[in-house]
Amino acid sequence: MFKLLKTDGQTKARLGQLRTVHGVIDTPIFMPVGTQAAVKTLDPRELRELGAQIILSNTYHLCIRPGMEVMEKMGGLHQFMSWPYPILTDSGGYQVFSLARIRKIKPEGVSFRSHLDGTALFLGPKEAMHMQKVLGSDIAMVLDECPPHTSTQRQLHDAVERTIRWAEHCRQQPRADGQLVFGIVQGAGRPELREQCAKALVSIGFDGYAIGGVSVGETEAEMMKAVEYTEPFLPANQARYAMGLGTPAQIVELVARGVDMFDCVLPTRIARNGAAFTRKGTVNIKAAYCKTDPGPIEEGCTCFACRTFSRAYLRHLINVEEILALRMISVHNCHMYVQLMTDIRRHIAQETFAEFRAEFAWTYVPSKNLRANKSIVAE
Amino acid sequence: MFKLLKTDGQTKARLGQLRTVHGVIDTPIFMPVGTQAAVKTLDPRELRELGAQIILSNTYHLCIRPGMEVMEKMGGLHQFMSWPYPILTDSGGYQVFSLARIRKIKPEGVSFRSHLDGTALFLGPKEAMHMQKVLGSDIAMVLDECPPHTSTQRQLHDAVERTIRWAEHCRQQPRADGQLVFGIVQGAGRPELREQCAKALVSIGFDGYAIGGVSVGETEAEMMKAVEYTEPFLPANQARYAMGLGTPAQIVELVARGVDMFDCVLPTRIARNGAAFTRKGTVNIKAAYCKTDPGPIEEGCTCFACRTFSRAYLRHLINVEEILALRMISVHNCHMYVQLMTDIRRHIAQETFAEFRAEFAWTYVPSKNLRANKSIVAE
Repeated sequence: MFKLLKTDGQTKARLGQLRTVHGVIDTPIFMPVGTQAAVKTLDPRELRELGAQIILSNTYHLCIRPGMEVMEKMGGLHQFMSWPYPILTDSGGYQVFSLARIRKIKPEGVSFRSHLDGTALFLGPKEAMHMQKVLGSDIAMVLDECPPHTSTQRQLHDAVERTIRWAEHCRQQPRADGQLVFGIVQGAGRPELREQCAKALVSIGFDGYAIGGVSVGETEAEMMKAVEYTEPFLPANQARYAMGLGTPAQIVELVARGVDMFDCVLPTRIARNGAAFTRKGTVNIKAAYCKTDPGPIEEGCTCFACRTFSRAYLRHLINVEEILALRMISVHNCHMYVQLMTDIRRHIAQETFAEFRAEFAWTYVPSKNLRANKSIVAE
Repeated sequence: MFKLLKTDGQTKARLGQLRTVHGVIDTPIFMPVGTQAAVKTLDPRELRELGAQIILSNTYHLCIRPGMEVMEKMGGLHQFMSWPYPILTDSGGYQVFSLARIRKIKPEGVSFRSHLDGTALFLGPKEAMHMQKVLGSDIAMVLDECPPHTSTQRQLHDAVERTIRWAEHCRQQPRADGQLVFGIVQGAGRPELREQCAKALVSIGFDGYAIGGVSVGETEAEMMKAVEYTEPFLPANQARYAMGLGTPAQIVELVARGVDMFDCVLPTRIARNGAAFTRKGTVNIKAAYCKTDPGPIEEGCTCFACRTFSRAYLRHLINVEEILALRMISVHNCHMYVQLMTDIRRHIAQETFAEFRAEFAWTYVPSKNLRANKSIVAE
């Protein structure tokens, strides 16, 4: 399924292609997040036009609303949301452990109450895989336990044990036709747990491997370490996915550490605060200097928003609370991420990725208050 | 500017074309409402795709935000909102009398405070026309006084007198190149005031005539009467515009009474409540029966929303508060209005409008709680 086309000579960056039922995706890739079967404010045409090849959605949220009965009757997620291209679904493990009120963890799964209305639900490997079969996603994720960043060594150890056991069960469940299943490596910031978990999952054998337990409140340095502790134990000929990451600067650094796939709510979330990603950092379209600025969000950008509207107009729309502003900044931000990945791939192909990485780190001014943490309910 | 192509034999319906700086529009026509320089949730491409030929915007709201200084620097409204097609701007009279806190009415205009932040402002014929010159709209409206529906005979009489005097002043003001100026007939439900106002405005001479003081809280029967009292005194060879009207059923009836132009916030406003216009009446997409309905909002509809999404999906989006739902129902509703006007024009051309009107009245079930009243702040 995964074809490793090239490995960078100076970094661990990789160029590849992943074949799924709904099409081939180029890696490194960014997946816009459509938690509730919609990438916030955007329609499928806009997503395709801005260059999205694959999007992510979420089993936990779709299980709660509209529910799997509706999803089954509607013929699965692609048809439901009118997106005939690849979709990756998260298993819901992350949300059960971050959003829901857990009642009991058992070997066969977790009893919990919905964060929305308290409905009693049960999620185990069997349920997670069955729901993803109903959704018909191209890539399903195993059910994992993602413990809080502040857990004890004992708790982290138990979570890894349970993650491995559940992964085994997930591996044995029926899948949708051609559906790929990825394992998820847990182990927080402990090298020995990361190694143990990665090796166990690889011996079970999956179609790709995710690095979980990142963007859960740890520092950026700790996040990078967690990836570095995991990556050496993942097979070179399969895709690696860093879950819930990250800022543009982090993504460039993670590609350099051998990661192929990314998802992050930041492009759509910060758009809703009037903030836009550019190659030099974030800009706040609400700022006074945008009041009569006839230029686009980012000079030279080819997205629909930048081809069509000025900063002055978008600032006005934000001021008068017109939804079109959020939409257009979301278009730009998703396009910026997708375009960044295109550039990364080109530089890996041309063997100039190390220079690109250095230049990006020099040019891009990270915003201190941006967190890729995905625990907020809405996404 | 206005070319009367055909008058219906059995009703007063008219087929025409109005030439403006930014293009020719076919009448009878519906103008989607972009009060604050945006038709709520929609972008210009969507508007054009759903068939909009002309949109409406509002001088009062644009004067408050972003302000005329910004509008001037940004090169006018067409460039600001990236809509290179015809625009009609209301003068702001309606909003001054319905939204603002009036301090004093003088011969040369009204002192008032902004509904938003209490800023002291002044609007007279000179100011209204100057601002519309800055906006560069294709059709500017004169400043009128639109008194409450409950006014005394004396107040109505004074408002008509003032409306005529202000219209004279407006007529003498400088305009943008090629800008058309329409007079506004007031006079509430009084036939003698409607006649007086219409005749006075016609003798001043405008490029078209609007019927104002409708959709201000009167009954539908009173509204129809107000139009019937006015229409006979308007020149046949110029466009007539019923301001702020109406429901689909009302529009068909108003076309039969000789009205050529319409604007109404209903298509976008009811979309935000999950309600959609169809040829048979409104449907509530939130309704339980839509839960697993794989069909579009309206069978046979060719709008982007109906071509792309099911009722089940849109209902889910409303439930989880995804903005895409409001957008898509707005696309459908505006398309429904625009398509209705296209059908009306075809039937006038084919001399089958009377039959179409009878069939529409039979098929379309009006929703009792829909009001075209446009006094709500946001629009």
